[in-house]
Amino acid sequence: MVDGIKKKQIVIIGGDAAGMSAASQVKRQRPDWSVIVLEQGDYVSYAACGMPYYVEGLIEEFEQLVEITPQVFREKRGIDLRLDYRAIAIDPAAQTVAFRRTDGTEDTLNYNELLIATGARPLVPKGMKTGKRVATINNLNEARHLQQLAAGGDLRRVAVIGGGFIGLEMAEAFAARGLETCLVHRREHLSRQFEEEISTLIKEKLQAGGVELHFDASIDSIEERRNGVRIKTADEELDVDLALLALGVTPNSELARDAGLELGVGGSIVVDDHLRTSAEHIYAAGDCAQGRRMVDGAPIFSPLALKANREGMLAGLNMAGIDAVDRGSLGTGITKVFDLGIARTGLSFAEAEKAGLQPVKNLITTRSRARYYPGSAPLRVLVIASRRDGRVLGAQLAGPVDAVKRIDTFAVIIQQGLNLDQVLTLDLAYAPPFSPVWDPVLLAARTTRKMI
Amino acid sequence: MVDGIKKKQIVIIGGDAAGMSAASQVKRQRPDWSVIVLEQGDYVSYAACGMPYYVEGLIEEFEQLVEITPQVFREKRGIDLRLDYRAIAIDPAAQTVAFRRTDGTEDTLNYNELLIATGARPLVPKGMKTGKRVATINNLNEARHLQQLAAGGDLRRVAVIGGGFIGLEMAEAFAARGLETCLVHRREHLSRQFEEEISTLIKEKLQAGGVELHFDASIDSIEERRNGVRIKTADEELDVDLALLALGVTPNSELARDAGLELGVGGSIVVDDHLRTSAEHIYAAGDCAQGRRMVDGAPIFSPLALKANREGMLAGLNMAGIDAVDRGSLGTGITKVFDLGIARTGLSFAEAEKAGLQPVKNLITTRSRARYYPGSAPLRVLVIASRRDGRVLGAQLAGPVDAVKRIDTFAVIIQQGLNLDQVLTLDLAYAPPFSPVWDPVLLAARTTRKMI
Repeated sequence: MVDGIKKKQIVIIGGDAAGMSAASQVKRQRPDWSVIVLEQGDYVSYAACGMPYYVEGLIEEFEQLVEITPQVFREKRGIDLRLDYRAIAIDPAAQTVAFRRTDGTEDTLNYNELLIATGARPLVPKGMKTGKRVATINNLNEARHLQQLAAGGDLRRVAVIGGGFIGLEMAEAFAARGLETCLVHRREHLSRQFEEEISTLIKEKLQAGGVELHFDASIDSIEERRNGVRIKTADEELDVDLALLALGVTPNSELARDAGLELGVGGSIVVDDHLRTSAEHIYAAGDCAQGRRMVDGAPIFSPLALKANREGMLAGLNMAGIDAVDRGSLGTGITKVFDLGIARTGLSFAEAEKAGLQPVKNLITTRSRARYYPGSAPLRVLVIASRRDGRVLGAQLAGPVDAVKRIDTFAVIIQQGLNLDQVLTLDLAYAPPFSPVWDPVLLAARTTRKMI
Repeated sequence: MVDGIKKKQIVIIGGDAAGMSAASQVKRQRPDWSVIVLEQGDYVSYAACGMPYYVEGLIEEFEQLVEITPQVFREKRGIDLRLDYRAIAIDPAAQTVAFRRTDGTEDTLNYNELLIATGARPLVPKGMKTGKRVATINNLNEARHLQQLAAGGDLRRVAVIGGGFIGLEMAEAFAARGLETCLVHRREHLSRQFEEEISTLIKEKLQAGGVELHFDASIDSIEERRNGVRIKTADEELDVDLALLALGVTPNSELARDAGLELGVGGSIVVDDHLRTSAEHIYAAGDCAQGRRMVDGAPIFSPLALKANREGMLAGLNMAGIDAVDRGSLGTGITKVFDLGIARTGLSFAEAEKAGLQPVKNLITTRSRARYYPGSAPLRVLVIASRRDGRVLGAQLAGPVDAVKRIDTFAVIIQQGLNLDQVLTLDLAYAPPFSPVWDPVLLAARTTRKMI
């Protein structure tokens, strides 16, 4: 007993962003508690979002992607981290987890509180098989495999299947390596995360960067052959040396499902605003856990890094007996396609319509810096606001890489529920190397207001 | 009569940011009203903040700094713009303005509503005289004079007097031109706008850029001589070819004072939250008008470009009979010193202490991008928060130029009155080329929270 709190044993399944954030948080709050992490792989706490840049060759050693080593977690943070341990079953009634070691032996662990942080895995359509040349990029071993292939000289032509964030980043990575790169996408426009107007700019940038676009292309089959991969779509056959599947991810929620836990959007684990699942003493956090959209509270599946890190931290606090509420997320995302920065936050127009918020959409072209300052370039700002009350619901940016982090300004605006008039009162920074006098955020609000 | 509103004659004194914003706004709302602008100079609507970069040589033609030409204001916007007209007296009881033309003739104008937008002028200490070699940079003619000198080849050594934003920018401009540049500043640290920790980083960057620092140097005299300028401080004599006075500005409020209007901080014209002065039917906006600090409502003198533009717009709306409230400002400022970006918003530690807000101050060093991503560099974030309730009161940044516009995130946070716990719920954007997973704003909030 310390501070009237009973000493507990915390078990965490999964040693990536959410799991290790939670483990660290529990040990910070309760140094004398036992925290055991079961991780089925060889690595913990690596920067998955950095993998495309490693394949591109911008990062020399894949060890640079390891944020914190197992040694640090074990020795400095006192976490009982068990690599190559695979959790195989949860018994919520008995409060036990069964696991298997690499040598095949099995055992069980008792827990007072359990966190499921099993992450997500790439979607592989039924009937398709991954292999040496039909790859996914879901962990450091896969990243290393792809990096070796891309750098090795025997790839000439590759296909990236899927136009989400990872697909775009991997298309850039291969093209920047000098490979003939096809981007195959099933719809006419990119990920629904971006409005068509922004999608069009991205497509133009991909083409300018030498990426061959195969859009509106539903895939019938992907077949690994002796000398490469044949991709069949409704309209054509593509022969490439490598196909990368980037069709999104699906939550690793089988353990939770088999234990009788409630599942939600896309099979993600339902959690409340304290990251508690439907079973007592079991929490879930990160990609495997269902999220909540800030604007309207709608349940979402949103496998993003900050969400995983934050949910891990909050679950850790709650397991340690410290009340911590999760406020949900806006799906804020950012990336670059060659020298085009793109970013988004909040609702899309379609989501806002579906939520009954009567949206208007306004796209403006302004400048990233004062018109006359060197390097000033067009910056597109798309604002989605409610016709009912002028509230800002969503925003998207496309322009110079150094200009699109201002999506954060919109993220705070949306989270705070500001309307366009309130946005116009914001005292944002101005100097010619950074912005026009009226920052693009303000200018977009000014012009959107006229539509309402 | 249109829409039940009587047709009015609006007179505006001063044709820069505030004046022309107001004039344009009135004409937009009331196209049939008469709007007369009296401007004593030759130019209107120029980018004063761009002048240092013009002197530096980054902007080829000074005409590029003219945002909108007199022709456009006259022909497209229907504004009766009178250049080289100098307002010489206001009679609030008679509702008239007396003015003088360049040919010396005088006349008066009636107004229904009057806006004073006379701006500010550089401070010149008593007993010092400006001249060809003791310059200020307050309008396009002065900027051209300095640019010609700097580019002309007969300057070898220059002194910039004053370490505020303009002083820093001009020191960079001269040093980048290859001139021996001294920065003379009366205190040990730079402008009180920056905490000493940030000031130290700026000083290091100035020195690395070859600028000679003469700090803690109170100036006794500046004397233009046959072959240059002699500057005497308490400790030394500096002989230079040119001295630039950048000691701040003082509001042009003499007309207002002589008309009996109430003056406030630093002689600026007192206005209410509708930009109304103490006299009926007279408004003031921009650098000549007193501002209000958002956090605590304290009156301030804050000659910043966005404030001037916004106040002009709001005064224009109010003069046009449309209720528009000014919410004040945070003194958000940003600039660069060579390759160091610096930015600030909200209260300084001393201001917060004086306001009784029991501040704590926390400075962290984090990264501008993911640690492993090319170009990742140290980013300093300084947060000032209230010990009482964790509310964020002020923030300052120093780091790569492309990283410091995130001061805007803090500006919204402070304006919305968020505390550190609420900051931690913000869904800010992450990808390796843009940020660590926990954006520097979030990371600073996390570590500051531990101090409260």
